[in-house]
Amino acid sequence: MDRIFILFLTARMLLLIGIGIVAAMLVGWYCGDSSQVLWGFGGSAVFCLVVSLAAMLFSLKRRHALKPGQERSVLREGVLAVFNVWFVALIMGGLPFVFGGHFTPVDAVFETASGISTTGASIIQSGMRLWGGVEQVGGLETLPRAILFWRALLNWFGGIGFVMFALILLPVLGAGKHLYNAEVPGLKNIYDQETSRIANTARLTLGCYALWTAVVVVAYRYCGMGNWFDAVCHGFATVATGGFGNYSDSFAHFPSPLVQWIAIAAMAISSCNLMLMLRLLLHGKFAYHKDEETRFFLGIVLAVTAIFTIQLYCTGSKLEYLDGTPIPHRLEALCRTAAFQVVSLISTTGFATSDYLTWALPGLPGLLLLIMVCGGCGGSTSGGMKVARVLVVWKQALGEAHRKIFPHLMPNVMLNHARVDMPLVRQTMGFAIIFVVVTGICTLLLPYLSSMDFETAFSCAISAISNVGPGLSKVGPASSYAWMSAPAKYLLSFIMIVGRLELYTVLVVFLPSFWRNK
Amino acid sequence: MDRIFILFLTARMLLLIGIGIVAAMLVGWYCGDSSQVLWGFGGSAVFCLVVSLAAMLFSLKRRHALKPGQERSVLREGVLAVFNVWFVALIMGGLPFVFGGHFTPVDAVFETASGISTTGASIIQSGMRLWGGVEQVGGLETLPRAILFWRALLNWFGGIGFVMFALILLPVLGAGKHLYNAEVPGLKNIYDQETSRIANTARLTLGCYALWTAVVVVAYRYCGMGNWFDAVCHGFATVATGGFGNYSDSFAHFPSPLVQWIAIAAMAISSCNLMLMLRLLLHGKFAYHKDEETRFFLGIVLAVTAIFTIQLYCTGSKLEYLDGTPIPHRLEALCRTAAFQVVSLISTTGFATSDYLTWALPGLPGLLLLIMVCGGCGGSTSGGMKVARVLVVWKQALGEAHRKIFPHLMPNVMLNHARVDMPLVRQTMGFAIIFVVVTGICTLLLPYLSSMDFETAFSCAISAISNVGPGLSKVGPASSYAWMSAPAKYLLSFIMIVGRLELYTVLVVFLPSFWRNK
Repeated sequence: MDRIFILFLTARMLLLIGIGIVAAMLVGWYCGDSSQVLWGFGGSAVFCLVVSLAAMLFSLKRRHALKPGQERSVLREGVLAVFNVWFVALIMGGLPFVFGGHFTPVDAVFETASGISTTGASIIQSGMRLWGGVEQVGGLETLPRAILFWRALLNWFGGIGFVMFALILLPVLGAGKHLYNAEVPGLKNIYDQETSRIANTARLTLGCYALWTAVVVVAYRYCGMGNWFDAVCHGFATVATGGFGNYSDSFAHFPSPLVQWIAIAAMAISSCNLMLMLRLLLHGKFAYHKDEETRFFLGIVLAVTAIFTIQLYCTGSKLEYLDGTPIPHRLEALCRTAAFQVVSLISTTGFATSDYLTWALPGLPGLLLLIMVCGGCGGSTSGGMKVARVLVVWKQALGEAHRKIFPHLMPNVMLNHARVDMPLVRQTMGFAIIFVVVTGICTLLLPYLSSMDFETAFSCAISAISNVGPGLSKVGPASSYAWMSAPAKYLLSFIMIVGRLELYTVLVVFLPSFWRNK
Repeated sequence: MDRIFILFLTARMLLLIGIGIVAAMLVGWYCGDSSQVLWGFGGSAVFCLVVSLAAMLFSLKRRHALKPGQERSVLREGVLAVFNVWFVALIMGGLPFVFGGHFTPVDAVFETASGISTTGASIIQSGMRLWGGVEQVGGLETLPRAILFWRALLNWFGGIGFVMFALILLPVLGAGKHLYNAEVPGLKNIYDQETSRIANTARLTLGCYALWTAVVVVAYRYCGMGNWFDAVCHGFATVATGGFGNYSDSFAHFPSPLVQWIAIAAMAISSCNLMLMLRLLLHGKFAYHKDEETRFFLGIVLAVTAIFTIQLYCTGSKLEYLDGTPIPHRLEALCRTAAFQVVSLISTTGFATSDYLTWALPGLPGLLLLIMVCGGCGGSTSGGMKVARVLVVWKQALGEAHRKIFPHLMPNVMLNHARVDMPLVRQTMGFAIIFVVVTGICTLLLPYLSSMDFETAFSCAISAISNVGPGLSKVGPASSYAWMSAPAKYLLSFIMIVGRLELYTVLVVFLPSFWRNK
């Protein structure tokens, strides 16, 4: 095991986190945060940067030491590096919360895990216990700007995680392709004909991501959000499908229909494969409608939105936005409210304008859990199983049914008019099973760690592994995770990271054969 | 499509149902049921037998008409025959409930589906609505003996369904092997080296099943049950892992610890592969401990029982049997109570001695749902996914994780020291996915058909597809399904049959290609 190599990668990641903390501190200083907060951020940044520089110096000589033909060891080191980097990011990313915001360590870890995995579940609420047993007065609104900005930045870092990682790895890692594949959410070899070299793809993707972020931020600023700070924070959280907001009433804080529709569109586009946007920018080819995964994704969104809109329109029950104002019984308002929650959950963002638990529609909890598990498209920042995987798994299962009647048919799964390799199909089936098993284990363990009913535990598990944020029952969109015990928060933090890294990357570390010497 | 051939098979099945109704009528006559009930049963039997004879005469000429080389058509006809036979059995088996017990048609269909699929969910409770809007006075105890016996007989028929079917098919169907495989619960080609010819296997299995039933009935009679009627009915329901009982308080009606331990053992043994018992009887070889599936099954039972026993012992909360008497806080009583519910649920029987919903243990709902999904062993009368499938699916998923680190490893799943064919592994993975999908769809639809919360809908769906009976929340072991709307009852009846026929056999009928002409 090449520990120094892993150290080097971790050091580069730490550098990024340090720079991020400095940025958050500057924003806080500009917005007039108290000096206590700024000192907390400054201290965290210095600590982070010093550790990073020390590690970098120590590992400098290893930079070009990787010999060719070491593929297996590279694979294992890649996995360990990913594991290590995320673990260190959890600790270091949590420092500003502890020193700048007086969070307890467990809350800081949870908030960082939730942010960097783009989950968006938060423990912040009025009355939560701070370090030393003090009570937090007021909700998200009362937090220092630096902390709010750091949360949004964590979301944004998490969303682009895989591209950043490829960029950091490429200078040092010849055989980065395997690792890249392990990190890219979604199915490999479907879209990588676009650019021949990974380095290129990664740089272009990062540029595309930044450009798209800028578009969303500007749109937010000029279509309903009062200031740049809110626009930037919510833009970061939207593009990353993260879901950290600046207000207790989430997106209901912005009553303008226009800004809500923009958020719906932005969340939906952010859940589509980034390669499709890249293709549009580079070659001017609009290919969204040709992509089977995107079509299926939009189909689900439209269908579920239509179901809820019709139900809401027909039952005529009194609905409220999250800030307590009533929703008028007009088709546009109801459709917008339904579409917002549906897109927010299927894109695994987790913003809300209304508490869907108060809607009292039959079938709603099951349908919401289902779209949360489904998630967005592969190659996007969204979580969940990913639509492409759902398609492959379903086609394969249906194919087996066909082979019951026609036993001599060859197994064959088509996606976008191309045959999916059988090993990849098997891996995807395995992924689905492990997804179910991890969700099941989490559902089993949670009630032992913190007292909760089955519905809460089950929806918590699904919400965490799919990187959504809100769930059902006690963790609805109007609640926070503040009430949970520390062990439950640690478990959920772990599950969120497992979900973000797409299960295998984390779980192989627990196989005994992983640690056996070559 | 050879419709007359299917008609012939259906006619033979009807003959059996007719004989069963006559048997129930005779039992009712012996036990002194009112003449009204006996007339209802007699009429149903006559109708059933007349239809059967007419159909048989009509289809007689087709008896030997099957040509060799018609494999695909035989496969489709086999599937259609299974589908048809179960559908007709639902209607005809429900007649005695309607004419003998004044059940509404939907209740009769539900009770028949629940009985013949060995689920054991019941709509019978004091106060339920009968045909014409009358209220039922009193629970199960007040029903005519003929109806109670018919319920037990439906369980028993359902349990041995696949063997009976093979026996009925064999005289007419040369290529019965495919069909046999479609019907046998569990994985094929693992155990069929035992006897060379299917005819033999089927006859021997039926004999073994009957003998095992007799053993259980005698044990019940002399170890705590007051009369032969109860012993026979509960024996039938135990061996079939069905779960229809004669009393509202289920097995809590028999307070003797001995009879409860016997029931635990009988349910557990009935969930093991019948071939293992056959091997013991024929060759005197005790092979239970050598079978990986059985070992794993018993391991789960012991582990979950231990967890609940420890929890019950440590929390010291006041527990009650279903009849309201308190459970003493002794280790034996608590262990017996925990073991009874665990074995009852994992064997998918559905008997109960205590309402587990009142236990208030953390993690209990999730753990119970998990063992319900798992089910007993392949080749047994139990439902659920079957332990062998769970093992194969898990090993395959874990194997894919291994191949993430060692990409050149060949996919290879071992069960009982033998390699499982890759097509079979793929089929099993597909089975698991379809199991999850059908459960999900059922969970989604149920709240639209009958008002219920998510937990009830989810546990109902799992309980129905796994053929268990009780679930969580509003369908716990102390409740019945009487409160549900008619469409919800029809949906659950369908799901129970789908579960009993192991998904593929029913679901292929809904594929368009199934109906395309050769």
